[in-house]
Amino acid sequence: MADQPGWGEGAPHADEDALIARLAELVDGPAVDVLRGIGDDAALLAPDLVWTVDTQVEGVHFDRATSSPADVGWKALAVNLSDLAAMGATPVAALVSVILGEGDDAELEAVYAGLGACARTYDCAVAGGDIARGAGLALSISVLGRARHAPGRAGARPGDVIAVTGTLGESAAGLAVLRDPTLRDLPGAEECVERHRRPHPRLADGKRLAAAAHAMMDLSDGLATDLPRLARRSGVALTVDLDALPMHEDVRAIAAALGHEPGAFAATGGEDYELLVALPAEAVGACGVPLTVIGAVTAGAAGVRFAGAGADGALRGWDHLA
Amino acid sequence: MADQPGWGEGAPHADEDALIARLAELVDGPAVDVLRGIGDDAALLAPDLVWTVDTQVEGVHFDRATSSPADVGWKALAVNLSDLAAMGATPVAALVSVILGEGDDAELEAVYAGLGACARTYDCAVAGGDIARGAGLALSISVLGRARHAPGRAGARPGDVIAVTGTLGESAAGLAVLRDPTLRDLPGAEECVERHRRPHPRLADGKRLAAAAHAMMDLSDGLATDLPRLARRSGVALTVDLDALPMHEDVRAIAAALGHEPGAFAATGGEDYELLVALPAEAVGACGVPLTVIGAVTAGAAGVRFAGAGADGALRGWDHLA
Repeated sequence: MADQPGWGEGAPHADEDALIARLAELVDGPAVDVLRGIGDDAALLAPDLVWTVDTQVEGVHFDRATSSPADVGWKALAVNLSDLAAMGATPVAALVSVILGEGDDAELEAVYAGLGACARTYDCAVAGGDIARGAGLALSISVLGRARHAPGRAGARPGDVIAVTGTLGESAAGLAVLRDPTLRDLPGAEECVERHRRPHPRLADGKRLAAAAHAMMDLSDGLATDLPRLARRSGVALTVDLDALPMHEDVRAIAAALGHEPGAFAATGGEDYELLVALPAEAVGACGVPLTVIGAVTAGAAGVRFAGAGADGALRGWDHLA
Repeated sequence: MADQPGWGEGAPHADEDALIARLAELVDGPAVDVLRGIGDDAALLAPDLVWTVDTQVEGVHFDRATSSPADVGWKALAVNLSDLAAMGATPVAALVSVILGEGDDAELEAVYAGLGACARTYDCAVAGGDIARGAGLALSISVLGRARHAPGRAGARPGDVIAVTGTLGESAAGLAVLRDPTLRDLPGAEECVERHRRPHPRLADGKRLAAAAHAMMDLSDGLATDLPRLARRSGVALTVDLDALPMHEDVRAIAAALGHEPGAFAATGGEDYELLVALPAEAVGACGVPLTVIGAVTAGAAGVRFAGAGADGALRGWDHLA
């Protein structure tokens, strides 16, 4: 019954992946129904459940100056659905946990309106949740889906190509526009802002790709952060060409206006919510999903080598614990 | 692209239940696999999944001065498992979402150690989670279980008796002891503190009671708050005798030392994590779980009438949005 029982000074953890490995040890135990636990975009439970959680915190993941309450609600669910997409899953339902800071009550209904719009768009029921008081607005959403086959991050094989859906860098460009009003008149600025505020999970593509991909994950933190995760989990070397990244011309122009090489800008921006896959080259045209090949998987020490303009810099994605 | 898009001044919501009903409307949509959504201790998904989430926030649900990091981890999972117990479910797995405030990093492993101890005690796997930065420490845990039959809160019928498992008021007494060191030498003080810090979900009892109970919920916010929820959901009148509440003699003495009628103290304290059931009188002795009958269900307007010492006061449980 001593005061401050066991609480001490904080020492920040430098490496999120090492931290997660340590935490996994601390909660290790029997897991009869857990087919795959910590390490992929979502957990797999027997027989076919895919389950994940993601938290969006004010001032870290979103900002009142750049996103409306409805945007925040939409995005908090969409980023979770993107994790289901990465597992090739169909959404079943979501549970919503809200922490309300001082003065957040009036926006709660607008947050839920955006959340509901996203839920209806992607046929995901909202099955419940809870509301708590706290120091600032945060939304922690847990989603359940079903999948017959979930590739996960561990299956990339030497000889595979690395490919992505859609285009990269728009969300990062949108955030840059929101932060610097002088960019607002550039072509495509509004579209980038919209994509930053309301990402669309690649659920239909994820289901198709699950049958063809050896490994799959969603791009939430940027290629520079997410590729090393795939490399480590699969135990392979990846070579990726920054000049090959699929980018809209407008985004290349915004990146250039900001003084960045476009490929490096897209690789470090984060929040693309596109799918990153490792698959046989011959599956790229046959899988039924438009893909851009950006690199290759080779044998060798697990790691990522970038080529192309901007690859000489210290490429780094978004670290949300930094 | 206006600044502060849609964010305004906060106006606190007075009534949590009305708020939840409004939020449920905003996210309403198709829910193929959701057998029962918002309204019970957990959601029911086809065919037999029970799913819930609960968030514990520093300064609201726990306090560094009174709970260790490991206590916080234990309790954050235990309160979720208590919701599974209320649905008669067997735990399958948990997802853990952590928000870390400034300086919380060093305690994270201790939090997980307590969480892991609770998970192993109740055979609940930890299948994953996420970690985010924020303004203060918060743990949002989502748990999945399985149940053949979940009574829920809506089935209480006139003629049923109201009964509870175990004893009430210990957690509230423990919190009082932690806040007032002069109470520490009273008999039973340490046991009450332990029960406040490390509640034990009634999982085995919940499974047995699920077969006999017409309605069931767990006591998290205190009888004075939780009974009206049962009354409203079931559309029945409840009469409960505060003198009949099962309480340890030591807890009665601590309540008296604090100047409270013991029954009123227990009914308003919260965090008992016992099970509250409505069931036929003849099932009380036959259900295989020790129960104390504390009241009765009658026809009439949905509501709760308390009798006994302390019933004349404005009985009120813990409102975690206040």
